[in-house]
Amino acid sequence: MDIIAPVVTPFRNGRLDLDLYAEHIRNITAKGVDAIFVAGTTGLGPALSVEERKALLEAAASAARRVIFQVGSLVLDQALDLAKYAERFDAVEAIASVPPYYFPRLSERQIAKYFRDLCAATTRPVYLYNYPAAVGRDVDAKAAREIGCLKGVKDTNDSIAHTLAYKRLMPHMRVYNGSDSLVLASFSVGLDGVVASSANYVPEALARLREYVARGDLERARSLQFAIDEVLEAARPLGYSSAVYELVEIFQGYDAGEPRPPIYPLDPEERAWLRAAVAQARSKLAP
Amino acid sequence: MDIIAPVVTPFRNGRLDLDLYAEHIRNITAKGVDAIFVAGTTGLGPALSVEERKALLEAAASAARRVIFQVGSLVLDQALDLAKYAERFDAVEAIASVPPYYFPRLSERQIAKYFRDLCAATTRPVYLYNYPAAVGRDVDAKAAREIGCLKGVKDTNDSIAHTLAYKRLMPHMRVYNGSDSLVLASFSVGLDGVVASSANYVPEALARLREYVARGDLERARSLQFAIDEVLEAARPLGYSSAVYELVEIFQGYDAGEPRPPIYPLDPEERAWLRAAVAQARSKLAP
Amino acid sequence: MDIIAPVVTPFRNGRLDLDLYAEHIRNITAKGVDAIFVAGTTGLGPALSVEERKALLEAAASAARRVIFQVGSLVLDQALDLAKYAERFDAVEAIASVPPYYFPRLSERQIAKYFRDLCAATTRPVYLYNYPAAVGRDVDAKAAREIGCLKGVKDTNDSIAHTLAYKRLMPHMRVYNGSDSLVLASFSVGLDGVVASSANYVPEALARLREYVARGDLERARSLQFAIDEVLEAARPLGYSSAVYELVEIFQGYDAGEPRPPIYPLDPEERAWLRAAVAQARSKLAP
Amino acid sequence: MDIIAPVVTPFRNGRLDLDLYAEHIRNITAKGVDAIFVAGTTGLGPALSVEERKALLEAAASAARRVIFQVGSLVLDQALDLAKYAERFDAVEAIASVPPYYFPRLSERQIAKYFRDLCAATTRPVYLYNYPAAVGRDVDAKAAREIGCLKGVKDTNDSIAHTLAYKRLMPHMRVYNGSDSLVLASFSVGLDGVVASSANYVPEALARLREYVARGDLERARSLQFAIDEVLEAARPLGYSSAVYELVEIFQGYDAGEPRPPIYPLDPEERAWLRAAVAQARSKLAP
Repeated sequence: MDIIAPVVTPFRNGRLDLDLYAEHIRNITAKGVDAIFVAGTTGLGPALSVEERKALLEAAASAARRVIFQVGSLVLDQALDLAKYAERFDAVEAIASVPPYYFPRLSERQIAKYFRDLCAATTRPVYLYNYPAAVGRDVDAKAAREIGCLKGVKDTNDSIAHTLAYKRLMPHMRVYNGSDSLVLASFSVGLDGVVASSANYVPEALARLREYVARGDLERARSLQFAIDEVLEAARPLGYSSAVYELVEIFQGYDAGEPRPPIYPLDPEERAWLRAAVAQARSKLAP
Repeated sequence: MDIIAPVVTPFRNGRLDLDLYAEHIRNITAKGVDAIFVAGTTGLGPALSVEERKALLEAAASAARRVIFQVGSLVLDQALDLAKYAERFDAVEAIASVPPYYFPRLSERQIAKYFRDLCAATTRPVYLYNYPAAVGRDVDAKAAREIGCLKGVKDTNDSIAHTLAYKRLMPHMRVYNGSDSLVLASFSVGLDGVVASSANYVPEALARLREYVARGDLERARSLQFAIDEVLEAARPLGYSSAVYELVEIFQGYDAGEPRPPIYPLDPEERAWLRAAVAQARSKLAP
Repeated sequence: MDIIAPVVTPFRNGRLDLDLYAEHIRNITAKGVDAIFVAGTTGLGPALSVEERKALLEAAASAARRVIFQVGSLVLDQALDLAKYAERFDAVEAIASVPPYYFPRLSERQIAKYFRDLCAATTRPVYLYNYPAAVGRDVDAKAAREIGCLKGVKDTNDSIAHTLAYKRLMPHMRVYNGSDSLVLASFSVGLDGVVASSANYVPEALARLREYVARGDLERARSLQFAIDEVLEAARPLGYSSAVYELVEIFQGYDAGEPRPPIYPLDPEERAWLRAAVAQARSKLAP
Repeated sequence: MDIIAPVVTPFRNGRLDLDLYAEHIRNITAKGVDAIFVAGTTGLGPALSVEERKALLEAAASAARRVIFQVGSLVLDQALDLAKYAERFDAVEAIASVPPYYFPRLSERQIAKYFRDLCAATTRPVYLYNYPAAVGRDVDAKAAREIGCLKGVKDTNDSIAHTLAYKRLMPHMRVYNGSDSLVLASFSVGLDGVVASSANYVPEALARLREYVARGDLERARSLQFAIDEVLEAARPLGYSSAVYELVEIFQGYDAGEPRPPIYPLDPEERAWLRAAVAQARSKLAP
């Protein structure tokens, strides 16, 4: 069962800090992360240019042995370009994509065609990145099966039953859940793993959680999940996408850069508040 | 981890068949069900009169050693009357109640007051029966903690994280999930059990599923969950509340009576269709 | 264009006060209300017994010339009994019913059958009372047309387009919107009228609003609607179903009785708060 | 009351056809459209590059006297750049922006800051473009008032009450509804107008509808609205964003170019189907 980190994308003064990106990846990989999800939601993917995403991929491929590259775009040619670019990196084990977002009035045929066009453009496996709360539509197990060429899915969804349905209908698919609240559940029911933003700040805790589940020590596993839940509860009202940067600093001890507006960084009061709010969870999550 | 059956309420010609009710309870109890949930949603509770619910409780208490009695009503005095009536049966280990349903414009104060009034009226533990899809409101872990007197919860909810939150905030609470799609997940993360309508028709399979999880045999456990999912998928479009009666006959081999309109029984074509649709799942679920 | 009042049901010490009920109806009828909607949501219909609903109908039929009787029930025989009972009153111009509520897993066939059984049981026109937020399902214009026997609809829905669709697909249907926020819109687009809970406390303002729309004085009409919106905004957080009783007293000057728990009456602080909160709107709505 | 057209953006072989764009604008302006909404949802705004949006603005400003320019972006600097660029065109009467979309976990502070940064960067009035179904969040009247610097709103929302609330809380704001199903309602309740995608294909009908409302001829107005509703109902299942191009050809008689994948053009069967499906509505909408 994989622990996959949808890594944050560090900006400094409006520019990517690729060294920091690679270093962050090396750190969390050393602490238990198995693979890196590049340009996901936590990585601000849909807010990045094609060039920025390519630069991130190159840095990630140099720092990690296993990379999944999220190429979703509202311009098909950009998604295809990114998918093709990825072919030059051995570390890229799969291409992932959100369905076309924002436009609420696309047909199922159009969504399916998007993924088929993507599959046709790459030799790598294509994974669906299903995230209804961000995308505004759900490509569920039946729709995914209909598409035909998908080899995996990251399902960011509060319902583990929804995620399990992909496995039920397509037993050979790689199936990951993407919700930090469902790490325990994902490991316990035997998914192929998780893509968890908390892998940015508590990779060791996720590794231990997996270990506890493997050993059948549910009580310890649950108490780690609950501590993660406390962090999420504290961070969400501040804007979770921004808070993740701060959480890396709080838990891992190094500056993780900043997001890029309109994903504004936390302001100083929010940072102080967050640090205090997670203090208790921090001691529970400490290695 | 408990397997609790929210038992169907059998009508014949518009009247309760209490003998059949007791017999059904005895049968599924013998096959692995630990406790009986009387007058829940599967039992058509909100569509029953006070007298009918009392009669059901009496029958259930004579047929099972552990009973949870659902007393939710849009008339407080009826709920209190039912709760008091239950005191005479040793088998009643808890009173459960849905929050006031239908009326979308009640305040949090009113909901809390309802449960506190219920707690004050009985010496038995009071459980929240949280079912947002039916009730139209969610009494989540924070709201439940605020109420103060609740000792357990049946959370009918697709999100196992939502259910786990009750345990996180109130570790001493009995916490059950009520979704048939989440039996595997509920056992795997270590909830106190499930209240599963499928316990009416495949109690043996649920018992085995629990056993597999206990042994760490996730593959077998998952394959039973998937077979249950197939049954749900087939039955839901027909009206699940009605289909459950038919599923008892299909899987357990005896007539389980009928629901009462407007929860209309399946018509003959629907019954034939359902039997065919679950044939494959049936062989997977066979003891 | 009709102004229809879904009248509150007054309790005193847990019993119906039928004299007050009739008096309230006479008062608001004198002030511009055209017809009375008995046992709707504001009238706590789904929380009343069959006997209570019959008593209300009798009182309403004696006090008003036009009555619509809401008979929705989770027991079909009760709904049919109520529909038949209504035949003895000339004032009853239609039977209305919510679809079966609470049970989220009924099929479209079951819903349609419920309404067809109701149509078959009465010589009066049957109206759909569509209220998705309370019922948990939407019987939209297409579904209503499919049912076939419906002669009218009260659509409690924020979308006036949703309401207009009934008129588009069934031009001969009586079509009312049931949202107090959409009184202006309902009159302006030419619906057959409104079923507005605010007719309990500001019937004169509704009559003037209708008059302004008829005259094309949109500015005045809008300012009345906005004052009603202010009242709604103040009242809703307290539990609107309970607040309506208090609003009758504030605006009409007489005691309107109490709701019945779990629709708890407002407590003294809430009452004082509400009175202050609507003071400004009150002067705008004054005759 | 304004009729504002969120114009389609015509591609040919993957490139903008700016001549066609200007010509289309001139045509519909001649037929009753008052102002042009550039790079809205119908115009595929969020799928366009900064350069493409600038080119569109230039063409629109040369072809119409009144232009609203939608600058929403997931990169703040791009939105500011577009807003500044617009200053050179006298025709630009306002800057509009969707809130940051896709990222479901931004805080209210971040959303407010985005609009304030936009207001600070331009001398033109800034309008909120509220479209919860696309954006995943609702910036309602209260939130808009809190932001402080907004001068107008295009509210794409099925609830006209939601739209009216902006006017109620901020009487000096320009308030438009953006739903094609609510043209009649918007004119009838006296909004400042509509931003209606149907202005691309039936501008004459919208002008007549407005005229009928002004004259108090509700029956004719309603029959036009119903014919538009029929078109929407036919077009939506095909992917409305793509169907609009075809509807221009069907109703206006000229080729309007193509969308850009993943907003795929309709395929030939879909085009033929659509033409047949709107035939009846077409005769009702004919000048």
